[in-house]
Amino acid sequence: MQLRSSPMSPYARMVIIAADVLGLAERLTITPASVMPPDGELATQNPLGKIPVLVPDNGRPLYDSRVIIDYLDSLAGGDQIIPAGVGRHDALCLQALAIGMIEAAVLQVYERRYRPPERQHQPWVDAQAAKVNAALAVLEQDPPARPGASHFGLPDVGQIALACALGYLDFRFEGAWRAGCPKLAAWLDVFAAKVPAFGRTRPPAA
Amino acid sequence: MQLRSSPMSPYARMVIIAADVLGLAERLTITPASVMPPDGELATQNPLGKIPVLVPDNGRPLYDSRVIIDYLDSLAGGDQIIPAGVGRHDALCLQALAIGMIEAAVLQVYERRYRPPERQHQPWVDAQAAKVNAALAVLEQDPPARPGASHFGLPDVGQIALACALGYLDFRFEGAWRAGCPKLAAWLDVFAAKVPAFGRTRPPAA
Repeated sequence: MQLRSSPMSPYARMVIIAADVLGLAERLTITPASVMPPDGELATQNPLGKIPVLVPDNGRPLYDSRVIIDYLDSLAGGDQIIPAGVGRHDALCLQALAIGMIEAAVLQVYERRYRPPERQHQPWVDAQAAKVNAALAVLEQDPPARPGASHFGLPDVGQIALACALGYLDFRFEGAWRAGCPKLAAWLDVFAAKVPAFGRTRPPAA
Repeated sequence: MQLRSSPMSPYARMVIIAADVLGLAERLTITPASVMPPDGELATQNPLGKIPVLVPDNGRPLYDSRVIIDYLDSLAGGDQIIPAGVGRHDALCLQALAIGMIEAAVLQVYERRYRPPERQHQPWVDAQAAKVNAALAVLEQDPPARPGASHFGLPDVGQIALACALGYLDFRFEGAWRAGCPKLAAWLDVFAAKVPAFGRTRPPAA
């Protein structure tokens, strides 16, 4: 299987960690892709021009990260990092929260990357930052379970997504979140210790 | 169950249609919510301040639309509008494509709504419009199956999401997509005829 990816993408990072945790990493060939604008091949694989895209050996390209991870979990037998029963919707909701944090963080980065200074609008950036901060506050008050504390000893999709969201804040916002979130920072340390793929997928220096 | 919602939200529309198709509409109490900024109750239910949020009778609030629809499908017995086996990832990928179209369309709307004219940046708007147009072109070339043609006779999550994406383009962009997409427009007519909740959830005039 081919994964169209970039070492800077927190969404691609989730997929690579999921594949590793599921024992599927060796079946994944990672091929770099460009976005904004998408390279020609990516544009044919995903009309949205976004990464990650998984191209199965025999099959249509799959996106986005949530769909790819669901596919990988099925390939590994199902009910592995996406619980089929108890805990399923808590895990999926944590995944949605983490993805929402990343979306709000990416919009802040894009504001500077894709607009000249005179077209940037601070109230918009502030509204996105407020979403990230509100999510951090809720998570700090009630951090998720230790990865691997349940269900086959594997981290679940929610925990993987949260680790990638926090990793993205480290990467793009110099880890400023850590000062107000000691419990969450400790949680991430445990995650990193238990899930070696997290360290291996750390993005290169910004 | 309570659904925090707005008649203008294409994401909430997906959830309401899914609930109706699954026979769960009577169990859903729809409560309006404000976003940007979120009302106080919504902020406690979803730190991202986004709708829809489902508050189960006994349970933690769930978001986003994909997670809520997965939950409703489980409540209805599972494998209803989200296929458990064959076709699962095609349906989920179409759902992701439709959601990506909505995201790109919403960013165009927000550009005008949340920025003064001098802070709006046309290349950004154009890049989002290009994503929507590329998705429309791919879908027009190879429209999805007729809703209900397979799997229990129900539309699947991908078809429901696509109908809501096209409905959002009708609502916010005066249906300009229809001129270039006659096959897709015919597909949407069939969907609307087979899924009465689609017509009932049409947003009020913009």
